[in-house]
Amino acid sequence: MDIAVLGTGIVGRTLAARFAELGHTVTIGTRDPKDTLARTGEGEFGDWAARNRAVGVATFADAAAAARLVVNASNGAASLDVLELAGAHQLAGKVLMDVANPLDFSHGMPPTLFVKDTDSLGEQIQRAYPAAHVVKTLNTVNASLMAHPEQLPEPGTVFVAGNDAGAKAAVAGLLAELGHRDVIDLGDITAARGTEMMLPVWLRLWGALGGPAFNFKIVR
Amino acid sequence: MDIAVLGTGIVGRTLAARFAELGHTVTIGTRDPKDTLARTGEGEFGDWAARNRAVGVATFADAAAAARLVVNASNGAASLDVLELAGAHQLAGKVLMDVANPLDFSHGMPPTLFVKDTDSLGEQIQRAYPAAHVVKTLNTVNASLMAHPEQLPEPGTVFVAGNDAGAKAAVAGLLAELGHRDVIDLGDITAARGTEMMLPVWLRLWGALGGPAFNFKIVR
Repeated sequence: MDIAVLGTGIVGRTLAARFAELGHTVTIGTRDPKDTLARTGEGEFGDWAARNRAVGVATFADAAAAARLVVNASNGAASLDVLELAGAHQLAGKVLMDVANPLDFSHGMPPTLFVKDTDSLGEQIQRAYPAAHVVKTLNTVNASLMAHPEQLPEPGTVFVAGNDAGAKAAVAGLLAELGHRDVIDLGDITAARGTEMMLPVWLRLWGALGGPAFNFKIVR
Repeated sequence: MDIAVLGTGIVGRTLAARFAELGHTVTIGTRDPKDTLARTGEGEFGDWAARNRAVGVATFADAAAAARLVVNASNGAASLDVLELAGAHQLAGKVLMDVANPLDFSHGMPPTLFVKDTDSLGEQIQRAYPAAHVVKTLNTVNASLMAHPEQLPEPGTVFVAGNDAGAKAAVAGLLAELGHRDVIDLGDITAARGTEMMLPVWLRLWGALGGPAFNFKIVR
């Protein structure tokens, strides 16, 4: 499948490399590809791209235009701007897999949420792009576990929330390819409120457990 | 141990009966014991009390005065009023195990949270009763699983959050008696923000799974 991953951070890179490894045609979208690729040095995108030549690099709009499925892997605070650069026309009719979190670091640590409880980032994106099929997923694990859930000693649970059943099925298929064995459909996109509001306890668990190598498993 | 359970709803009744079964001396606190006991008929407190004679019934203040550990099992929206009736003097120096959730049903279903993200009900209670040792716990499972976690096919996780290490140890001891096998200490009482914000996804999971017989297990 042609997949666009919007965002060049650790989440975008990790998902893009993994999707490419799984045989998909993957393009990472960024604001200015030339500028992004020019950033070299340890941990910089240019170095990563040189080691991951199977992943294309293009503008947000070009990446989205070529894709059947678009992943929003941008920083939550930047997501609406990034999607505007991708363009409504390029997102229309497509599955928009949203893995971002509405974290607000402007008041120091721990971050708070800039939208919550009566609305969510997933809903903001769906409202801004009504012709896209937004599916909120994977925002409750870190990048490494998104791509390689088998690192944990037993399968955890991941969630999908979205208004379109076909889009959720497509995302569930991708999640299965990534190795996720327990996927719970929480309902429409308003359920993104629930999974985004798991971030505060996720951040506390990170502190209590000394790292991000954990997941929520729904025992039932 | 002498335990006061404040609240006559399903959570209060379930915990009180279970603590009594475990050999503790338990008193349920209520606004007006005579009035509460006079409510008879199916599901009413009077009938429950007649079947649970090992559990005493007293005013909030008398129940708290006799206890070493006080459980806030009241409706979250009423908790500060209930604790005011219990009285600061009766709570001072005691462990105050807070299992309530700040659910706001005034805008219809699903409920929202009347405090969140930058504050929590647990913190509101700790601020109102600085001489009490508030420990937030068990608010992420329903009453039946609070008391009998062995109903699930494998152990889930429960959390403690509070400022006093001794109080958290006392609560962890009680949790172990109830059968909880995995207790994570999330840190000080501000971590109650995280566990209280799990309610929205908990409510969605109830809908998706068709009932409340589930728990979060932290796989790590």
